[in-house]
Amino acid sequence: MKNQRLEQQVQFCREIDKEKMIKRMTYLTDGASKENDAEHAWHMAVMTLILSEYANEEIDVLKTISMLLIHDIVEIDAGDTFAYDEEAKKSQASREEAAADRIFGILPPDQQEKFRALWDEFEAGETPEAKFAHTMDNFQPIMLNAAVGGKGWSDWETPLSKIMKRNENTAAGSRELWDYSLNNFIMPHVDNGVIKKDI
Amino acid sequence: MKNQRLEQQVQFCREIDKEKMIKRMTYLTDGASKENDAEHAWHMAVMTLILSEYANEEIDVLKTISMLLIHDIVEIDAGDTFAYDEEAKKSQASREEAAADRIFGILPPDQQEKFRALWDEFEAGETPEAKFAHTMDNFQPIMLNAAVGGKGWSDWETPLSKIMKRNENTAAGSRELWDYSLNNFIMPHVDNGVIKKDI
Repeated sequence: MKNQRLEQQVQFCREIDKEKMIKRMTYLTDGASKENDAEHAWHMAVMTLILSEYANEEIDVLKTISMLLIHDIVEIDAGDTFAYDEEAKKSQASREEAAADRIFGILPPDQQEKFRALWDEFEAGETPEAKFAHTMDNFQPIMLNAAVGGKGWSDWETPLSKIMKRNENTAAGSRELWDYSLNNFIMPHVDNGVIKKDI
Repeated sequence: MKNQRLEQQVQFCREIDKEKMIKRMTYLTDGASKENDAEHAWHMAVMTLILSEYANEEIDVLKTISMLLIHDIVEIDAGDTFAYDEEAKKSQASREEAAADRIFGILPPDQQEKFRALWDEFEAGETPEAKFAHTMDNFQPIMLNAAVGGKGWSDWETPLSKIMKRNENTAAGSRELWDYSLNNFIMPHVDNGVIKKDI
């Protein structure tokens, strides 16, 4: 029934408003407020429109953007897991799986299947689109961190080894964007001592 | 030169971070905080992924989403113009044109042209994609307003006539979504007295 379908879709659209309330650890370029998940997803989606030409392999831009727009919706239930919080990362997968079941489950069956598959594809990180989406997911906060003098790194005294570990797959989506971020965002903050050079 | 191109693109990506600091008048579903432009754009982009089947005419989803993702970037310079602020609306067009010149002008020439054309297309509101984008731009805040008991309307004592005027073209993108929002979001708040019935 059409009407029930639209009701489910609207319920999902209203539910995801909560993503605007999930805070991340990344500072905005004002160096004061911190980003939330919805802002982060918007920023990466626009950046994909601008930077998709640097993908290692040709990508379907709509698919990549769709992935980026919905990939953090699970954090409505599971919360944001900070990239350098090793304890929280242990339970991250199971918390996010349960959230995906509930939240995508609000949608009509065909869309539930479609968006769940898209989320699974992002998580697996194996297709050209998923690889590029992960590149964006790393490049964007590094760009913002660099824009505020590395404040996000110095707050947590994040050493170079952890940043490199976190970014071990960033080049898989775009060699060129990884090189750019290493040379222009990360290394200048190693050179000036904000990031401790431990490797 | 490739490198200069990427520099310009990164500068644009950093500049648009400011869109997260432009507040709108719409309350989030928590009824406390208000939405900003980046959150609004993200929300409408996801909603287009979910609701594009209701467009009156077939739409190119990537084009529509691209439009929605970038259409408020001009407000970084021009500010948000409240839908019911008649004074501010007089200078809105010229303020936003100047902002579009400056901000899209950061991009390399081909992308400057592409995204400026997309913004112009949204503003003109004549293509199926632009019409649907405008439907989203109205449907989304009405949905949020209804979710908080019409607080956005009662704050400003917005009467029904103003809401109908504001939405005179909402059905042009999707008759079905306009009917839904009229029947499920707006009229219940006329019936309970939150919106003054002046027509």
